[in-house]
Amino acid sequence: MRVKTLEWKQNKLWLVDQTKLPVEFKIVECTDVQQVWDAIKRLVVRGAPAIGIAAAYGIVIATQNSRARGYGEFVDETEKVADYLAKARPTAVNLFWALDRMKKVIYKNKTDDVGKLKKLLLKEADAIFDEDRETCRNIGRYGATLLKNGDTVLTHCNAGALATADYGTALAAIFVAVEEGKEISVYVDETRPLLQGARLTTWELKQAGIDVTLICDNMAAQVMKEGKVDVVITGADRIASNGDAANKIGTYGLALLGKAHNVPFYIAAPKSSFDMTLKSGDEIPIEQRNPEEVTKGFGEQIAPDGIKVYNPAFDVTPCELIRGIITEKGIVYPPYTENLKKLFASKGSASTKKR
Amino acid sequence: MRVKTLEWKQNKLWLVDQTKLPVEFKIVECTDVQQVWDAIKRLVVRGAPAIGIAAAYGIVIATQNSRARGYGEFVDETEKVADYLAKARPTAVNLFWALDRMKKVIYKNKTDDVGKLKKLLLKEADAIFDEDRETCRNIGRYGATLLKNGDTVLTHCNAGALATADYGTALAAIFVAVEEGKEISVYVDETRPLLQGARLTTWELKQAGIDVTLICDNMAAQVMKEGKVDVVITGADRIASNGDAANKIGTYGLALLGKAHNVPFYIAAPKSSFDMTLKSGDEIPIEQRNPEEVTKGFGEQIAPDGIKVYNPAFDVTPCELIRGIITEKGIVYPPYTENLKKLFASKGSASTKKR
Repeated sequence: MRVKTLEWKQNKLWLVDQTKLPVEFKIVECTDVQQVWDAIKRLVVRGAPAIGIAAAYGIVIATQNSRARGYGEFVDETEKVADYLAKARPTAVNLFWALDRMKKVIYKNKTDDVGKLKKLLLKEADAIFDEDRETCRNIGRYGATLLKNGDTVLTHCNAGALATADYGTALAAIFVAVEEGKEISVYVDETRPLLQGARLTTWELKQAGIDVTLICDNMAAQVMKEGKVDVVITGADRIASNGDAANKIGTYGLALLGKAHNVPFYIAAPKSSFDMTLKSGDEIPIEQRNPEEVTKGFGEQIAPDGIKVYNPAFDVTPCELIRGIITEKGIVYPPYTENLKKLFASKGSASTKKR
Repeated sequence: MRVKTLEWKQNKLWLVDQTKLPVEFKIVECTDVQQVWDAIKRLVVRGAPAIGIAAAYGIVIATQNSRARGYGEFVDETEKVADYLAKARPTAVNLFWALDRMKKVIYKNKTDDVGKLKKLLLKEADAIFDEDRETCRNIGRYGATLLKNGDTVLTHCNAGALATADYGTALAAIFVAVEEGKEISVYVDETRPLLQGARLTTWELKQAGIDVTLICDNMAAQVMKEGKVDVVITGADRIASNGDAANKIGTYGLALLGKAHNVPFYIAAPKSSFDMTLKSGDEIPIEQRNPEEVTKGFGEQIAPDGIKVYNPAFDVTPCELIRGIITEKGIVYPPYTENLKKLFASKGSASTKKR
């Protein structure tokens, strides 16, 4: 059974507690906005789309029992809650985006009464959820066309259901292929330092009944050399207009190893991950993270006190190593500068968004 | 200050307790053979050469207070101790090799009295120690010629002093270059799953006052891309007659990343690591190790219960990715089949040894 990372039912928000995975499977029930705030803060819920959705439902939870007597009072209450939720993860762009979208619903419907506004807020949260679900499914549908029956995929980090409302991005291709009746096996890089592959990706693939094997990041070359990998698919955090893609550290090396072994390397990401204002990946700054993620990440200290650590959170895979980019509107192939321009010019496409 | 992994003084064997590193620096003093056995068993001392040397001194410790009245009795005692020590690590080839060498001293000197035999045993243990020391120094001397002032080396696993009587192999090149007055910086892969790089290599380089930075294995590509690495040097566990080299998992991937970034990749290893009976690395079996090394290695469970794990201990780097092999007799360059034949045919060279 595939996991439901978040669910809205019985006027409550139900979240898989990702801090307990992979050892314990626990559902957190949020009935007040403090609980939603806490869940976002403590990474009970994580992944840009999932955080946005949780925050949107947080607004619903906070306002559904409002006793506001009129529009002005209700606007005040909603804005206050939005400000509060925004502080749970001050760098999460999707969080602000979702909260803004919720506030706009109220700003646009000044003549509606409080009861109607409550309904509109729930409708908007559901819409954010459904749109993400739809995006995942479409990425999955296009991605699945790349997978043949019997294929083995190698993936890195967690670009799965646990980060989204539904199938995720890289994993969506696998979930849909399996739904279509294909037998797919998956190798998962553990993804040091924070081990999202070991902790989350193996867990959700196992839940879905998909054949999954965990490896350390430094085993990927050997696994490819043994002919065990047909295709590499990862997510992306930010993609430049030339197709250069920033993703979890280790992705770039994996793309190089793919090239050395003639294993095609694909990125799966929604259009919202593209930043068409960036000429190339050179403009994407590489965040340096806390050395203790490396030296004390497993519960035990694994390196001497005070040792220097280089801990980049991301790397950038140059477009020439990427066979194709799987989006909800189709698979984009090189030349990327040209074809991404077309994608973003086409009807119904969202404008470029900074993340 | 460089660490003395093992030392013989005051009729005792002094060992750095490698099970306590990198958090605690503790010296274990062995005054009876049970302590030596225990140190080998519990990996207080590790690394093929270091284990052999410890076992040789174990024989000395066990026999130096012998009250044997004649040759026969002394042979019996020595053989019994050798059998006992051999059981501490039943797969450590160097252990048996050192014990055999110690026994041969006695077999060869049948006419000597017990007092003389005791002295000969100590002399032999010292010789094993000194020869390893000499090998390390020579590897270091040749390796250092590859390093320019200001260079940065990337290494993997622990091919250092902690595995040998002296400078190690890959790290020897760095130690000697620094002795020669060159400024050398080092990046160390943490080396999953057992983290020998994080735990041991960073520690011994820091002890020696060398500038060292720890990275996760999956960061090597990014570090190379940023132009931070001038040369990669690793050790090897076993080298075939064509130059294919088996070493800790991750080495092969590192060699590929080196090629992609025009960073030369060298192996440093003594002649005893070559197996000239092997035509190529294809004949080297890849040991599969316990999944729990990956899933439960450092105090916390990092993957779901019962998850499949692929955990190869080694990989084989094909000779065409190796710029040169640094031995105690000089640096061997391609074509390896031809040049290794010459190395092993040359005067004073040891015969090939299986490990």
